[in-house]
Amino acid sequence: MAATSANVQNGVNVDQLVGTIKAIEGRPDLANFRFRSTSRWDGGARGHTTIKSFFGAGQEDTSRKLEYVLEGDEPPVLLGTNAAPNGVETVLAALSKCLTVSFIYPAAAQGIKVESLEYTMEGDVDLHGFLHLSDKVRPGFQNIRVTARVKANAPRAKIQELLAYATTVSPVLDTLRNPVPVTVELQ
Amino acid sequence: MAATSANVQNGVNVDQLVGTIKAIEGRPDLANFRFRSTSRWDGGARGHTTIKSFFGAGQEDTSRKLEYVLEGDEPPVLLGTNAAPNGVETVLAALSKCLTVSFIYPAAAQGIKVESLEYTMEGDVDLHGFLHLSDKVRPGFQNIRVTARVKANAPRAKIQELLAYATTVSPVLDTLRNPVPVTVELQ
Repeated sequence: MAATSANVQNGVNVDQLVGTIKAIEGRPDLANFRFRSTSRWDGGARGHTTIKSFFGAGQEDTSRKLEYVLEGDEPPVLLGTNAAPNGVETVLAALSKCLTVSFIYPAAAQGIKVESLEYTMEGDVDLHGFLHLSDKVRPGFQNIRVTARVKANAPRAKIQELLAYATTVSPVLDTLRNPVPVTVELQ
Repeated sequence: MAATSANVQNGVNVDQLVGTIKAIEGRPDLANFRFRSTSRWDGGARGHTTIKSFFGAGQEDTSRKLEYVLEGDEPPVLLGTNAAPNGVETVLAALSKCLTVSFIYPAAAQGIKVESLEYTMEGDVDLHGFLHLSDKVRPGFQNIRVTARVKANAPRAKIQELLAYATTVSPVLDTLRNPVPVTVELQ
């Protein structure tokens, strides 16, 4: 590889990753990101959330030309119409996205070529909480179990180490494992 | 309204809601739900999560004929290609979905007609955590701020009360505010 070629591994530009780390070491405020969403109810259990703008790396990011739309609904047994996944299912998708990046980027930085990465997840919810039928049952996930399947040019111990690292740095996993202060205000 | 008509408010079948509560009071195990997802990495920061099956109300639910696909990516500043929202943004969408249902269902049960419901959210993430540049900075959301806008045939105090109730029963809000045990295993 020529010295001027970008060092890309697993589809990740490792030079940019290293550059980002150096930039933040020099100017810590570049690490501050603020993500946003707007949602509207569409009747019954249905609604849609739009995501576009965010602040990060010291400025309002304008690279996205289109907004993303995520629809929500419930299955009929939960009074919906099966138009879209519900909130707790969407938490599992969020965790999947995050654990993917949290594994792939460090693997790329270490020069490990990943062939495939798959996560299956399941989580338990007891409706006694949501329906307010018991004060002893939490409304949210009681637990979440994640199983990873990885093919990569590294021994199992190294893959195990990368997976353990991913679980320590994953923003969504930390968001789930540790309390997040959430304020809810009526405008 | 004839006695045999379904009692539908805000698009929610209140008779079914009351029936669900009574069924669970008679047979508590019906409240146990298990949600699932499967995700595959698609190169770089990209991946997709599929959601379909779940267990609930005492059986494997087979009402969904198609699976939902949620794509993930990062913006270029986070080494992605802007193909889809990232994990932490998807957490905001999950919370939006959940707070929508958690407000609309109890409002329907109380006979309050909701005209519109909108949430805007923002949350702060400090990349020092994800990039492992500091042990003192958590990788996940440091905080999330939710603003609700509601139009309904009820005084502001009642809307405020419904919003406060939603925050106590919302499964995703509880999942964020309180720790969830998450296990991650390599197959």
